[in-house]
Amino acid sequence: VAKRLEKFKTTIFTQMSMLAIKHGAINLGQGFPNFDGPDFVKEAAIQAIKDGKNQYARGYGVPDFNNAIAARFKKDTGLVIDPEKEVTVTSGCTEAIAATMLGLINPGDEVILFAPFYDSYEATLSMAGAKVKCITLRPPDFAVPIDELKSTISKNTRAILINTPHNPTGKMFSREELNTIASLCIENDVLVFTDEVYDKLAFEMDHISMASLPGMYERTVTMNSLGKTFSLTGWKIGWAIAPPHLTWGVRQAHSFLTFATSTPMQYAATVALQAPDSYFAELKRDYMAKKAILVQGLKDVGFKVFPSSGTYFVVVDHTPFGLENDIAFCEYLIKEVGVVAIPTSVFYLNPEDGKNLVRFTFCKDEETLRSAVERMKEKL
Amino acid sequence: VAKRLEKFKTTIFTQMSMLAIKHGAINLGQGFPNFDGPDFVKEAAIQAIKDGKNQYARGYGVPDFNNAIAARFKKDTGLVIDPEKEVTVTSGCTEAIAATMLGLINPGDEVILFAPFYDSYEATLSMAGAKVKCITLRPPDFAVPIDELKSTISKNTRAILINTPHNPTGKMFSREELNTIASLCIENDVLVFTDEVYDKLAFEMDHISMASLPGMYERTVTMNSLGKTFSLTGWKIGWAIAPPHLTWGVRQAHSFLTFATSTPMQYAATVALQAPDSYFAELKRDYMAKKAILVQGLKDVGFKVFPSSGTYFVVVDHTPFGLENDIAFCEYLIKEVGVVAIPTSVFYLNPEDGKNLVRFTFCKDEETLRSAVERMKEKL
Ligand SMILES: CSCCC(=O)C(=O)O
Ligand SMILES: CSCCC(=O)C(=O)O
Repeated sequence: VAKRLEKFKTTIFTQMSMLAIKHGAINLGQGFPNFDGPDFVKEAAIQAIKDGKNQYARGYGVPDFNNAIAARFKKDTGLVIDPEKEVTVTSGCTEAIAATMLGLINPGDEVILFAPFYDSYEATLSMAGAKVKCITLRPPDFAVPIDELKSTISKNTRAILINTPHNPTGKMFSREELNTIASLCIENDVLVFTDEVYDKLAFEMDHISMASLPGMYERTVTMNSLGKTFSLTGWKIGWAIAPPHLTWGVRQAHSFLTFATSTPMQYAATVALQAPDSYFAELKRDYMAKKAILVQGLKDVGFKVFPSSGTYFVVVDHTPFGLENDIAFCEYLIKEVGVVAIPTSVFYLNPEDGKNLVRFTFCKDEETLRSAVERMKEKL
Repeated sequence: VAKRLEKFKTTIFTQMSMLAIKHGAINLGQGFPNFDGPDFVKEAAIQAIKDGKNQYARGYGVPDFNNAIAARFKKDTGLVIDPEKEVTVTSGCTEAIAATMLGLINPGDEVILFAPFYDSYEATLSMAGAKVKCITLRPPDFAVPIDELKSTISKNTRAILINTPHNPTGKMFSREELNTIASLCIENDVLVFTDEVYDKLAFEMDHISMASLPGMYERTVTMNSLGKTFSLTGWKIGWAIAPPHLTWGVRQAHSFLTFATSTPMQYAATVALQAPDSYFAELKRDYMAKKAILVQGLKDVGFKVFPSSGTYFVVVDHTPFGLENDIAFCEYLIKEVGVVAIPTSVFYLNPEDGKNLVRFTFCKDEETLRSAVERMKEKL
């Protein structure tokens, strides 16, 4: 294995999902729904396949889908963008992240991450030869330590990566936090890469896109995907929105990482993004009900549950149960209780920082959530 | 744009396909069929979507598909491999190439390419920080200059990339050439990365997989995809086969480039790879008929046509028509004749080497091929 990847292990999501199958455990680990995506989107994919939309798409996306992404972005943020020059369709948000890092970051550039963070951020920065600077968000509220951020920015800082709503904590960056980060970025000529795949799962406040803040669009790459919003995580359709000078780099990397993204699924995704407001409202309502069940259940079990404002994740402190660390706790939970959670230490540069915290997902049907809670009540 | 990608332009395939649309030209440029993939594969995709196979696949592939890939490989090469440890499913062969380079090549490693070569090889090697060493295959037969290869291998050579059947020339590496390369690799402890996406389009001789030569499996990454064999280039399903120690690097890079590949399409691809022998025989027969039409037509038009033994491409010398170079010729061809071909200079490290050659594809229905020939006969 090349040196750039030596320090990384099999991603925790794969590990845990495989253990779930092996032990017949209820999987509240990796974030994929155990219910299906909406029929109108599946029908659109079937129609596209039948209609012979089965050859290479244009590298940066089929025109209809680029248009739909721009229209959705306008609806969500008020920003008017050029679908031909500012949108790149990718094979999931994971590829958008990789293409952004490899397309825009030079060796030696510093990029600031907020820990805990999704593991691909660090790995793709390593591929790009970047220097990762890490700022830890700490419970209970996971607030951004502004002074630490200020002192971390240097003349070598090329970008700050933001993920809001935030995996794994469910934190949503407040308007105040975003404004402060924005001014710092403008002042220091720093880019923002923002992963907003959970934007439609914002429960306690409205989602705010960094790109929509004054002066920020021109320095922001906004990444999103179909999977979470449409319960179709296996389709792997994502995109990156950025002004033309940044889109150029993203597209160049994309064209050599995967060249193009599944054509029929792009046609289906076009239909998805045109869904009526009621679709998004219902999605949110459903997830709020699921969240209520899981959060109350986890409290009843005896966890300290940290507030989650968005995403389909919630983080708890497992220390009341007396296990050594998050990994040991998750192992016990799989083997002795029959429930899978995700240890959070893998989301930190310094694993120690996550040793008290584990993440549960509530993207499962209500019965599954209730059974998981029952198992924990009985056996923890 | 990051320095690693500065020298690369919009890929020629995208450029030319966009010009084809703009000028209403017949597109014999980018390699995608203008006919549809087989119904039994499309039906399998539709069934998978209906059956709710729509959530994240296992990172390295859904088990059924890994098994089908191993079974196909055994049928094709006689080699028995472990689908759990030696197969990685990727988003097209392009991603397999990127994952191989980023997962196995360190900065400063030397990798040998044979020019002309598919543009992503050089770009992904640049991402990996490798030093590209290039050996030019020259017409009429594009034979491997063995002495040059010997003197190019150094103690820093980490890998040789082979593409057989070869895009753009249609050359198939002979058993003798492969044996010589194999001995040099074993002698010098060099890996082989082999792109075999056109293996089922081998017309004049049987395809030989480098991995099947004695002592080579353990040092070879074999890459392939669904697109060309099943006329479904837009589905973007590929894979890499390699011994466990190499697969580890490929998987690590893959898991941070795209994480996983489209779930329903993997189920469809499983059915595809289990196609009866008659499917492959018919595919070959159809393509031989198409090839005969195009090759004869190009000769009648007045081109010098180089023999193509495999792929759905054929390379010609355009100099009888008096245009300055391949780019000028292709521009003339689009604007004045209404046919798109691919200039080959973009496939060389030194563009001068390709200035007399252009590539045509015959992955189009016979009528389209005949019309293109008619246009050229009339207007060239
Ligand atoms: C590829 S796993 C992606 C993110 C997610 O679903 C998770 O964090 O569980
Ligand atoms: C992504 S284009 C891939 C290769 C091909 O089809 C071509 O060379 O035209």
